[in-house]
Amino acid sequence: MAWICPCTGKLNRGLAVVESYKLLKAGSEPSEEEEFLACILGWGIEWLQAYFLILDDIMDNSQTRRGKPCWYRLPKVGLIAINDGLVLRSQISRIFKRYFHGKPYYVDLLDLFNEVDFKTTSGELLDQITTSEGQKDLSKYTVDVYRRIVEYKTAYYSFYLPVGCALLLSGGSLDDYVQVKHILVEMGIYFQIQDDYLDCFGDPEVMGKIGTDIEDFKCSWLFVQALVRVDERQKDILFENYGKSDPACVAKVKALYKELNLEAVFSEYEREIYEKLISDIEAQPNEAVQAVLKSFLHKIYRRMK
Amino acid sequence: MAWICPCTGKLNRGLAVVESYKLLKAGSEPSEEEEFLACILGWGIEWLQAYFLILDDIMDNSQTRRGKPCWYRLPKVGLIAINDGLVLRSQISRIFKRYFHGKPYYVDLLDLFNEVDFKTTSGELLDQITTSEGQKDLSKYTVDVYRRIVEYKTAYYSFYLPVGCALLLSGGSLDDYVQVKHILVEMGIYFQIQDDYLDCFGDPEVMGKIGTDIEDFKCSWLFVQALVRVDERQKDILFENYGKSDPACVAKVKALYKELNLEAVFSEYEREIYEKLISDIEAQPNEAVQAVLKSFLHKIYRRMK
Repeated sequence: MAWICPCTGKLNRGLAVVESYKLLKAGSEPSEEEEFLACILGWGIEWLQAYFLILDDIMDNSQTRRGKPCWYRLPKVGLIAINDGLVLRSQISRIFKRYFHGKPYYVDLLDLFNEVDFKTTSGELLDQITTSEGQKDLSKYTVDVYRRIVEYKTAYYSFYLPVGCALLLSGGSLDDYVQVKHILVEMGIYFQIQDDYLDCFGDPEVMGKIGTDIEDFKCSWLFVQALVRVDERQKDILFENYGKSDPACVAKVKALYKELNLEAVFSEYEREIYEKLISDIEAQPNEAVQAVLKSFLHKIYRRMK
Repeated sequence: MAWICPCTGKLNRGLAVVESYKLLKAGSEPSEEEEFLACILGWGIEWLQAYFLILDDIMDNSQTRRGKPCWYRLPKVGLIAINDGLVLRSQISRIFKRYFHGKPYYVDLLDLFNEVDFKTTSGELLDQITTSEGQKDLSKYTVDVYRRIVEYKTAYYSFYLPVGCALLLSGGSLDDYVQVKHILVEMGIYFQIQDDYLDCFGDPEVMGKIGTDIEDFKCSWLFVQALVRVDERQKDILFENYGKSDPACVAKVKALYKELNLEAVFSEYEREIYEKLISDIEAQPNEAVQAVLKSFLHKIYRRMK
């Protein structure tokens, strides 16, 4: 049976809470209860993601998720999947109330999830009004628009949220970590840029999947980078062939990406962002926080999948 | 332009916060700031309802809402309406953070909305699995199932939530008002039973609309009451004609409801529930709370629309 069980995902975001929390404790082993609470927060993020994915798949009319039919595609489910998404979201609040009510950081935890929920929903809104079927308009795909969609739709919940949870659990106040938030959001954007790059230039054998961003008319980092580099002739080629499932069209777009040397553009971006992130991380006063941020960065730097 | 603006609704739930709050202050006029905060809570409930209605309309494949096309039916909107619903929900948390963060009841307010959101979502789940298109099965429509759907889907957010908000704003702790919650939920169920009764037996001139619960295969109070009273012959008539748009079928169901004397059954229910509610209300130790509850009850008792 195909269903959205978070278990079929990689659980990166959930596990990141536990790992970050351990690093923040800087050597002293967390108690069994502390680790249990970190796991609950991790599952909260996984459920939050499941809620987003179930609803996004409906809005995008997607076919598959994690190699199986999307939840709403199952004949017995259909659009009730919308309510199933809401059930997941409201269970997070229930579970948090059960385990964290009375903790000094309980209200900050609710605020954090509400804020990240809002940011992600805003990112989806930006994404939908930019890329929705009805009004396909490639000139809307600019570097700034791309950055904003990715920041809101992906970076906050994937990178900031796990660390935010770990900081709260270890007694920190999020107001003291504004720079950490900026660094994590920047890392989240870098992560998505890698995703877009690998979709076209990654090795399908290593990735375990074949990218379809060009066919799918995605507002991809490669596309927005191409658009600022094309001459009139190349722009015509790009606009004529982007978003078509015909393999000949896809091949023309890929050839243009190579002609524009986007592989080198990406390598240069990756080098620069890595240096900037390392420098920003090392400017952090707290060494345990540095360790958390470096652990995130080294998990994604130069990843091949 | 047709859009879901809460203004096109009657704002009963939102206004009920302000009215209840004034009654709880028992004579002393609230300050301008206190009234402003009561209004914010009222709008929170209206936005919560708008979020539910936008999503419910998609799941029910509805055509109109408040006399206009449903939001998702507008050509430029479509399924992005799902995300629009989530935007409304997350704005409630943002607005509450802005105006109530730091107030002693802030965390209780978040908990209250989370609890009511969960209950309403659970009610929608119960409703969908009982009444969804795919598996039409009238024998699922029992008195107990009906009561549970109505309690969760309607009563908490429509009746308990406005009073809960007013209680918090006036410094109360919701744990001290468990009986008040029960009374309000019972009133919410009574309200929905009236709705179902009026859909069939109300005067369309007074109501401003023509009921279609029979055609729409609704799990209506009249249907579940009929089902416990029919003999085999009547049951066949009911099952053969319920949920069909043919006016002859609708007329047969209505004739059966009259044959079963459901008008008298309703009158008896209304008389009994009124007496029980009055008696429960008068057992409340706090007179201001009694006034709030009686005000609710007298707004709905024997209503014709």
